[in-house]
Amino acid sequence: MDFTNGQRAEVLIQALPNIKSYTDKIVVIKYGGNAMLNDEMKKSVMGDIVLLSLIGIKVVLIHGGGPEISNILNKVGKQSEFVNGLRVTDAETAEYVQMVLAGKVNKTLVNNIGSVGGRAIGLSGIDGQMITAKKRDEALGFVGDIVNINPAPIWDVLDKGYIPVISTVGCDKDGNTYNINADTAASRIAGAIGAETMINMTDIAGVLRDVNDPSTLISTVRISEIDALISGGVISGGMIPKVQCCVEAIECGVKKVFIIDGRVPHSIIIEILTDEGMGTMFVK
Amino acid sequence: MDFTNGQRAEVLIQALPNIKSYTDKIVVIKYGGNAMLNDEMKKSVMGDIVLLSLIGIKVVLIHGGGPEISNILNKVGKQSEFVNGLRVTDAETAEYVQMVLAGKVNKTLVNNIGSVGGRAIGLSGIDGQMITAKKRDEALGFVGDIVNINPAPIWDVLDKGYIPVISTVGCDKDGNTYNINADTAASRIAGAIGAETMINMTDIAGVLRDVNDPSTLISTVRISEIDALISGGVISGGMIPKVQCCVEAIECGVKKVFIIDGRVPHSIIIEILTDEGMGTMFVK
Amino acid sequence: MDFTNGQRAEVLIQALPNIKSYTDKIVVIKYGGNAMLNDEMKKSVMGDIVLLSLIGIKVVLIHGGGPEISNILNKVGKQSEFVNGLRVTDAETAEYVQMVLAGKVNKTLVNNIGSVGGRAIGLSGIDGQMITAKKRDEALGFVGDIVNINPAPIWDVLDKGYIPVISTVGCDKDGNTYNINADTAASRIAGAIGAETMINMTDIAGVLRDVNDPSTLISTVRISEIDALISGGVISGGMIPKVQCCVEAIECGVKKVFIIDGRVPHSIIIEILTDEGMGTMFVK
Amino acid sequence: MDFTNGQRAEVLIQALPNIKSYTDKIVVIKYGGNAMLNDEMKKSVMGDIVLLSLIGIKVVLIHGGGPEISNILNKVGKQSEFVNGLRVTDAETAEYVQMVLAGKVNKTLVNNIGSVGGRAIGLSGIDGQMITAKKRDEALGFVGDIVNINPAPIWDVLDKGYIPVISTVGCDKDGNTYNINADTAASRIAGAIGAETMINMTDIAGVLRDVNDPSTLISTVRISEIDALISGGVISGGMIPKVQCCVEAIECGVKKVFIIDGRVPHSIIIEILTDEGMGTMFVK
Amino acid sequence: MDFTNGQRAEVLIQALPNIKSYTDKIVVIKYGGNAMLNDEMKKSVMGDIVLLSLIGIKVVLIHGGGPEISNILNKVGKQSEFVNGLRVTDAETAEYVQMVLAGKVNKTLVNNIGSVGGRAIGLSGIDGQMITAKKRDEALGFVGDIVNINPAPIWDVLDKGYIPVISTVGCDKDGNTYNINADTAASRIAGAIGAETMINMTDIAGVLRDVNDPSTLISTVRISEIDALISGGVISGGMIPKVQCCVEAIECGVKKVFIIDGRVPHSIIIEILTDEGMGTMFVK
Amino acid sequence: MDFTNGQRAEVLIQALPNIKSYTDKIVVIKYGGNAMLNDEMKKSVMGDIVLLSLIGIKVVLIHGGGPEISNILNKVGKQSEFVNGLRVTDAETAEYVQMVLAGKVNKTLVNNIGSVGGRAIGLSGIDGQMITAKKRDEALGFVGDIVNINPAPIWDVLDKGYIPVISTVGCDKDGNTYNINADTAASRIAGAIGAETMINMTDIAGVLRDVNDPSTLISTVRISEIDALISGGVISGGMIPKVQCCVEAIECGVKKVFIIDGRVPHSIIIEILTDEGMGTMFVK
Repeated sequence: MDFTNGQRAEVLIQALPNIKSYTDKIVVIKYGGNAMLNDEMKKSVMGDIVLLSLIGIKVVLIHGGGPEISNILNKVGKQSEFVNGLRVTDAETAEYVQMVLAGKVNKTLVNNIGSVGGRAIGLSGIDGQMITAKKRDEALGFVGDIVNINPAPIWDVLDKGYIPVISTVGCDKDGNTYNINADTAASRIAGAIGAETMINMTDIAGVLRDVNDPSTLISTVRISEIDALISGGVISGGMIPKVQCCVEAIECGVKKVFIIDGRVPHSIIIEILTDEGMGTMFVK
Repeated sequence: MDFTNGQRAEVLIQALPNIKSYTDKIVVIKYGGNAMLNDEMKKSVMGDIVLLSLIGIKVVLIHGGGPEISNILNKVGKQSEFVNGLRVTDAETAEYVQMVLAGKVNKTLVNNIGSVGGRAIGLSGIDGQMITAKKRDEALGFVGDIVNINPAPIWDVLDKGYIPVISTVGCDKDGNTYNINADTAASRIAGAIGAETMINMTDIAGVLRDVNDPSTLISTVRISEIDALISGGVISGGMIPKVQCCVEAIECGVKKVFIIDGRVPHSIIIEILTDEGMGTMFVK
Repeated sequence: MDFTNGQRAEVLIQALPNIKSYTDKIVVIKYGGNAMLNDEMKKSVMGDIVLLSLIGIKVVLIHGGGPEISNILNKVGKQSEFVNGLRVTDAETAEYVQMVLAGKVNKTLVNNIGSVGGRAIGLSGIDGQMITAKKRDEALGFVGDIVNINPAPIWDVLDKGYIPVISTVGCDKDGNTYNINADTAASRIAGAIGAETMINMTDIAGVLRDVNDPSTLISTVRISEIDALISGGVISGGMIPKVQCCVEAIECGVKKVFIIDGRVPHSIIIEILTDEGMGTMFVK
Repeated sequence: MDFTNGQRAEVLIQALPNIKSYTDKIVVIKYGGNAMLNDEMKKSVMGDIVLLSLIGIKVVLIHGGGPEISNILNKVGKQSEFVNGLRVTDAETAEYVQMVLAGKVNKTLVNNIGSVGGRAIGLSGIDGQMITAKKRDEALGFVGDIVNINPAPIWDVLDKGYIPVISTVGCDKDGNTYNINADTAASRIAGAIGAETMINMTDIAGVLRDVNDPSTLISTVRISEIDALISGGVISGGMIPKVQCCVEAIECGVKKVFIIDGRVPHSIIIEILTDEGMGTMFVK
Repeated sequence: MDFTNGQRAEVLIQALPNIKSYTDKIVVIKYGGNAMLNDEMKKSVMGDIVLLSLIGIKVVLIHGGGPEISNILNKVGKQSEFVNGLRVTDAETAEYVQMVLAGKVNKTLVNNIGSVGGRAIGLSGIDGQMITAKKRDEALGFVGDIVNINPAPIWDVLDKGYIPVISTVGCDKDGNTYNINADTAASRIAGAIGAETMINMTDIAGVLRDVNDPSTLISTVRISEIDALISGGVISGGMIPKVQCCVEAIECGVKKVFIIDGRVPHSIIIEILTDEGMGTMFVK
Repeated sequence: MDFTNGQRAEVLIQALPNIKSYTDKIVVIKYGGNAMLNDEMKKSVMGDIVLLSLIGIKVVLIHGGGPEISNILNKVGKQSEFVNGLRVTDAETAEYVQMVLAGKVNKTLVNNIGSVGGRAIGLSGIDGQMITAKKRDEALGFVGDIVNINPAPIWDVLDKGYIPVISTVGCDKDGNTYNINADTAASRIAGAIGAETMINMTDIAGVLRDVNDPSTLISTVRISEIDALISGGVISGGMIPKVQCCVEAIECGVKKVFIIDGRVPHSIIIEILTDEGMGTMFVK
C-alpha cells in the first residue's frame, strides 16, 4: 500500500509518546526458533532493531539457533545419545553448538544489522565470561545451568554505541563450553542488565483463551494469574516453558515482558512504537 | 484516516535511512510569520520538533513574531515614526520588541514544547550575549545589524539535552536592545552553530515556476542558479528576501536549506523523515 | 573617596576568609520590588553579582517585577477584577505577566549583567518546566501554587558557567502560564537547588526592635524565635510575609537567609565579603 | 627447573626497561597455522598474552585457522572446486569459514584467555563492519580483497579493558561474508590501529642465512634489504609471503615486526620482556 | 647467575596470578632505618617499586630518616635536651627534621626513582596539609600526635600517574612543623588511603619463634594472637612497637601487613610477585 | 586605617575588570632573595597568593633561597672553593642546596600557605623530573644548565586545585642534583607552562631612570628598548641579570613580566587587581 507524505508524518508523530517512554531504556529482543528461519523476515526484523537503536533505545538482541545446530550435527553425521529423553552434549557436540551459535547465527545477524545500516557487535556467553555455567548432570555432559551473569560486556558494548547481539553459550573457569537454554539465559541476562522490557519473538500470537481463536488474545497477564491460567488449561504444552521464562524475567526485575508473533511484519515496532501493541504482556 | 498496526510500522521503518542520516546533526527550524498564527498548527509543529529531538536530531527553533509586536504597539497606543518607509525603533519600541519576542512568543513556544513532552530552554540574543549588534542607521534607532554571533549558549543548551528556542533580539556592550531581522539572524546563527540543515517554515509551497501552479514546484535550486531565476521573474517580490536568506545560510556553511509550507500538517517531518520531501531545497 | 593602592590591596586581602568560605557554594539573590527601580542601583547590583560569580561563587538571581506588571496593564487598559481583595489573573493577564517578567525584566537584567562583563542566561519557570503549578482557586484564575520545582535547568546553566537569572512564572502540563508569588518561589528554588545562602534584597534595613531606630537592628534570628518576635510586635505588617519566606527557605534546607537593604550600595558584597555583614540573618 | 625467590625477583626486575618501553603501546600478535595446534602450547600462549595485558600493554590477538576449516569441510563432505589452483569459496564455504573462524577458533581462544585469568572479547571482521571486502575475482567466489579496515571496534574493546581476539572474516554492505587472507588482514589491521609492534608466531625460527643452521639467524632486517635477500635465495619458498606480510605491516606504519618461533615456550614473553629477544625483527 | 631466555619467561609467567591480584590496588611500602642506608640497596629497592608501579600496582612509598637527622644535628652542633629519656624537639630541631626528611631523604628517593625510569612526586605531611598534628606534651616541644590524615594529596598524585614518596612531617593550622613517628604515620596513612597491603621493610627476617633460628619464622600472624606472642616472649623488645604498628594498620582497614627483611635483594618483589612470599604477614 | 563597609565593597567591585582578565590564566610569582626574609611579609605574600588562587587565577610560586643556603653551609662548616670567582658545587654542597631549598624553604612556604587557608603542594625540579640539567663546567661541579623543562608535574598539580610551590633544584638521569640559577629557571618554567604573566618580587621599585628618584620609574619597557637602556646606563649592575631574566621569559612566550617591590605590602595584589599597578612591566 502507498502512503501520502501526510499519512507518513501522522504515523511518525503518533509514535512520539512511545518513543519518549523508551528513550535510553534497555529493551531485550529474544529472537529464535522458527521466527528466524525466513531470510526476508530476518532482514526485516534487523531493520526494526536498527530503527529502535537509532531513535535512542538501547536494544540488545539475544538469539537461539536450535534448528541450525541439528542441521550441522546431521551434516557431520554426529549421532546424539539420549538420557531420559534429553540429548547428551559431549565435548564435540558442545563445540558444534558454539560454532553454530557464536559463529554462524550470531555473526550472520551482526552482518544483517550492518547491511541495514546498524552497528552491532556479536558476543557469546564466553566473551568477557558473560555467562558462567556448570554441568546440570554429569550424564548429560555439557548441558549447563547458569552460575552467574556478568553484565559488564553488554554494558560496555552498549556504552560504545553498538547493538549487542548475544549467543547464549556458557563457559567455566576451565575453558569448557556449555549448551545453555536460550530462553532462560535471555531472562537472566535481561534482569542482570536492568532491561526495562523483554520481547520474546515467537511463532504464536500470544496467550489465547481459545487457541484456535485469535480474537481471544489476553493482552495483559499479571504473573500472579499464571498458575490459574495453567491449571485452567489456557496456558499449556509448549507454551508453559515460554511463559515460565517470562515469569523469570519479571522476577529478575524486568518491568514488562512480551510474547509476540515474530511472523507478523514489524511486530517489534508495532509493540514498542504504536499505542495498541500486540501479543501478550506479562507484568508484576 | 485510520492505519493498521502494520501500516504504522511500515511507515516508521521506511523512515530509517532518513533518521540515520540526521542522527546527531543540527537542524535549525526558522518559524515565523503566518505559519505560527494558528494555535493548533503551532502545537502540531512543536510535536514535530519534539519527535525530531527524541530520535536524536539536535533541533534548534528560531522564531520571529512581527504580528505580535504590532499588536502590542497598537494596544499601548505607541505610534511609530517612519524614515524612508522603515519603522523607527526607539528605545521604548525596542523594549516592546524584546518583551514580546523574548517574553511572550518565546516562552509560549517553550511552554508548548513542554506540554507535548519535550524539554526546551528559551534563549534570546541577549542571553550569553549570543547576538551582538550595532545601529544600522542612527535615524532608525535600535534597528540592529549583526556584529557577532556567539554560538556557545546554543551549544551549551543542546549539550544539556534541551531544545533551544531562540528569539532574535540583539544586544550590545552598553546593555541596549536591538530589533534584528529574524531571517538574517536565523541564517547567521545556523552557520555559526554548524547546522546541517535549515528549514524555513513559510506560507508558500516553495519556489514555483508558475506561482499559480503548485505542480511547477522546483525541488532543488543551486545557489548559482538564483540570479537567473530572479532575472527570469521566477523568484520575485517578497520571495526575493526569503531566498537571499537561504543563500546567506548556505554561504555561512549550512549544507541544505529548505523553504517549506508550514501550513501543511507535519511538513517538517515530511521533509526530514520521508523520502520524497516537499518544498524547495537550496544547496551549493 | 580615593583609596591608595595599599588600601585597596588591604581591603581585598581582608575579604579572603569570606571568599574562601563561599567558594563553589550556591548563593541565591532575591531581587525585587523597589530595590530594582533605580537604574543606576540596578547596574551596581549586577556588578556585585558578576564579582561574586567571577571569584567562584555560584550566584543565582531570582527577580520579581510587580510594578512593571501593573504598569503594562495600565498601558493596555486592562482592568483587573478582584475576588476577596485578590486580583484575578485571567489568561490574558497571565500572558502580560509572562511577557513582562520573562521578556522585559528578565532579559534586561541579563543584558545589564552582560554589559558589566558577566555571562548570564535568563530562565523562566517555563524553561525546562522548572516551576510547575496549579490553580490555587478557580475564582482567581491563573494564580498558581507551586506543585514542583525542577532544579535541573538551573544546575545545567550553572554548570556551563552562566549566572542563571530567573523569573518566577509557572507552567503546567497543558501549556498554561501561572502568576506565582516570587518570594515563595525564591525560597522553594533556593531549597531545591541546594543553596548555601539566600539574600533577600529589600528596601528595609532588616528586623529592627524599634522600627524607627536603625541601631536596634537584630543581626541574627533563629527561626524558633520568630513566633515570639511576631507576637511581641517586633515583626509586623508587611514584614511578616518577608520573614515567613525566610523561614520557608530555611525549612527547605538553605543554611543562612538574609534580609538586607538593597538601597545601600554594594550591600551584597558587604554581606558576603566583609566581616561585619549587614541586615538580619535567619538561621536554624 | 626450580628457581629461588631471589632468582625470580632478579628476572622480574631485569624485565623493567622492556615493560616500560611497551607501556600503553599496542602489540598485535598474529597467531596461526601450526603454532596453534597443540592445546598445551595454546594455553601457554594465552597465558603470555594475559601477562602482557596485565602489565599495561594493549595486546590484540589476530588468529587464522586454515586447518580447522579444511577439517570441517571434510567432515561435511563439501568438495571444493579449484580455479587456477585456488580454492573457490562459494557462499556455503564462506559460511563454514565464518562458522569455524568466528565461532570455533575465536571463541575457544577467548575461553582459553578467560580460563587463565584474562578478559577477552572475540571480534570478527563482521563486527562493527571492521573488515569490509569485495570479491577478488568473480570466478573465485567469496575470496575477498580488503576494501577498508575500521579500527573503531578494536579501539572500543581495548578502551573497555578487554583483549580483542580477532578472526579475519570480511563483510560487505550486502551482508556477504568473505574469506580473507589472515596474514594480509593482520598487517592491515596492525597499521590501522596504530600498533607499535606486530609479532608473527610461526613454526620457523626466523630468517636464517642457512636454513639448516639455526646459528645463522638474522636478527634484524631492514625492509630495504629484502629484495637482495630474496634474489640471494636467503628468503625463499613459503617464507616469501610471510616476509611480504611483515613488509606490508611496516609500510602501514607499524614500527617493528617480528617473525618468531611459536613452538618455543613463552616466545612472546622472551621477545617483549627480555633483552636478547629471539627470531627476526623487520624495521624500516 | 645467568638465566636462559626460557627460564626468564617462565619466571615472568609464574608471576601472573600475583600481578593479577594486585592490579589497581594500593600497596604502601614503609621504608626506613637501616634498610635505606646502603646506596646500592636503595637503588635496588627503587627499581622494585618502579616495577610494581609499571605493572599496574599503585605503590606509595613512605620513608623515615632517623639516622640522617642525627647526622645533621651533629654536624651543626645542635645539642638535644631530653625529658624522661625522650629527645625534646624545639622549633629549630623541627626545622632540621623537616629539612632532612622532606628535602634530603625524600627528594633523593624521588631522584633515585627517576633515574631507574619511574615518575615520582615527593610529598611531606605539610603538602596539602596531609598530616595535621598537635603537641603530645608541651615539654617535648614539637613532638606531634596525629590529629588528622588527609588522603586527598596522595590520591591526587596517584591519579596523575606518579608514585607518591612521603615524608611524615606534620603541620598545624599555625604553620608549625612536627616531628611524627614514621611508623605510626605510615599505618594511619595506609588506612586513610584504603591500602590493600602495607609492607614494612626492616632489617629483621620477620617474627621468629627462636630469634636465632631463621627457620622458625612465623609466616602468618592473626592480630588476635599477638597478645599471647608478646606474653610468651616471642615478640619482645624493639619488635613490639613494630608489631603494634602492623596492628594499627590492620585496625585502620589495611587487609594485609608484612614485616620483611629489606636487606634481602628484591624482597618486595618476592613478597608481592612470587608464590612463596617471605617475612611475616599480619591479618585480621 | 579603618574602612567602612561601603568603602570595602567599593574597592572590591573596582577590582572586577582585573579579576575578569586573569580568570583561569597562569601567573608565576618569582619570590626570592631579601623579599622573603621577613617572616611577617612572607605570611602577607602567602595571603596575597591564596587570594589570587581563590578568585580563579592559577598561581605558581617559584622561590629561591640563597641566603638560607649560605647559612647552613656556614653552620656545618662547609668551606666552598671558588673557580674564576664562582662557587664550586661539589656533591655534598649540592645535597645541602637540595635540602635547604626543597626541604626547608619550600615546605615552609607550603606550610605558610596552608596556615592562611590555601592548598599547596611543594615540588622541586626533581619531582616528576621537572628540571633536567647538565654540568655547565666540570670544574664547577654540580652547577647546572637547564636541559629540559617538563611542565607536566606543574599542570597536574594545578589541575588538582593546588598552588604549586617550586624549588628550582635540577636533576639528571643518573640521580644527580644540580644547583640551578633560580631566575633563569623561573623564566624557563613560566614559558614552558604557558604563563600569562610572571611577577618578579624583588627589593627594588622597578627600572628607574634616576636610581635615586622613585618618581622616575619606567612603568612599561618593550624588550626591544632594553639594549638602549643598558647602553644608556639606566639598567646597570645587578639590575642587568634581573632584566635579562624578564627578557628570557618574554622570549619563552610569557605575555607580561613585572619587576615589583616585594617590600611594599600586598604588592602582588596591587599589581594584579588594581588599575594603576606598580613596578616595571616588560612586554614584547
